[in-house]
Amino acid sequence: MGFIDLLKFNADGLIPAIVQDAQNGQVLMMAWMNKESVERTIKEGHTVFWSRSRKEYWVKGQTSGHFQKVVSLSFDCDGDTLLVKVNQTGAACHEYYKSCFFRTVNPDGSWYINSEKLEK
Amino acid sequence: MGFIDLLKFNADGLIPAIVQDAQNGQVLMMAWMNKESVERTIKEGHTVFWSRSRKEYWVKGQTSGHFQKVVSLSFDCDGDTLLVKVNQTGAACHEYYKSCFFRTVNPDGSWYINSEKLEK
Repeated sequence: MGFIDLLKFNADGLIPAIVQDAQNGQVLMMAWMNKESVERTIKEGHTVFWSRSRKEYWVKGQTSGHFQKVVSLSFDCDGDTLLVKVNQTGAACHEYYKSCFFRTVNPDGSWYINSEKLEK
Repeated sequence: MGFIDLLKFNADGLIPAIVQDAQNGQVLMMAWMNKESVERTIKEGHTVFWSRSRKEYWVKGQTSGHFQKVVSLSFDCDGDTLLVKVNQTGAACHEYYKSCFFRTVNPDGSWYINSEKLEK
């Protein structure tokens, strides 16, 4: 795949992948891919990450049903970050928020929950 | 700052920060922050990154004029990624595209430019 050669993977072989809701632009999560998971994401049409903690491939939604169907995959000027636009089934976050970024910081450093949990 | 204690910085002391246009939801770029640049971003009201290549603080826009005025700063469920919504002046990308993610991949692995350059 031609674009793969333009990507700069970290020393550990990983590249960060930002996942964005293709419908409303909400940033849902960020996770890591290695070369094979990037290729699988394109071929299989849903996001496939590399779990740094479990050290295994992670098809998002395989256990939860919350698959992310790929709409487009872009890469940045430095080739060291991916942006994947998806159609998200259910919640992206394992805590049942639509987005993992459900906590927003106040100017004084405290924070608040910025959204509602989805129903399980 | 209370939320800082919830953040998990990498072994190198850095955390990835996704920057999103607060007006239209476009993901503009991803860069890295250390603890002090997170605090400066909140206090100064514009994004301050840590440049991994130059090993120095990097106030986005200081040389280009393309500042990013912070609208909100959120953090994810794992506390290992930031999402900063900004009002972007000019282009986020040093190549004069509004977003650094100006290349999108086709199913066959080739890619195309998905947007126009802004005028310098």
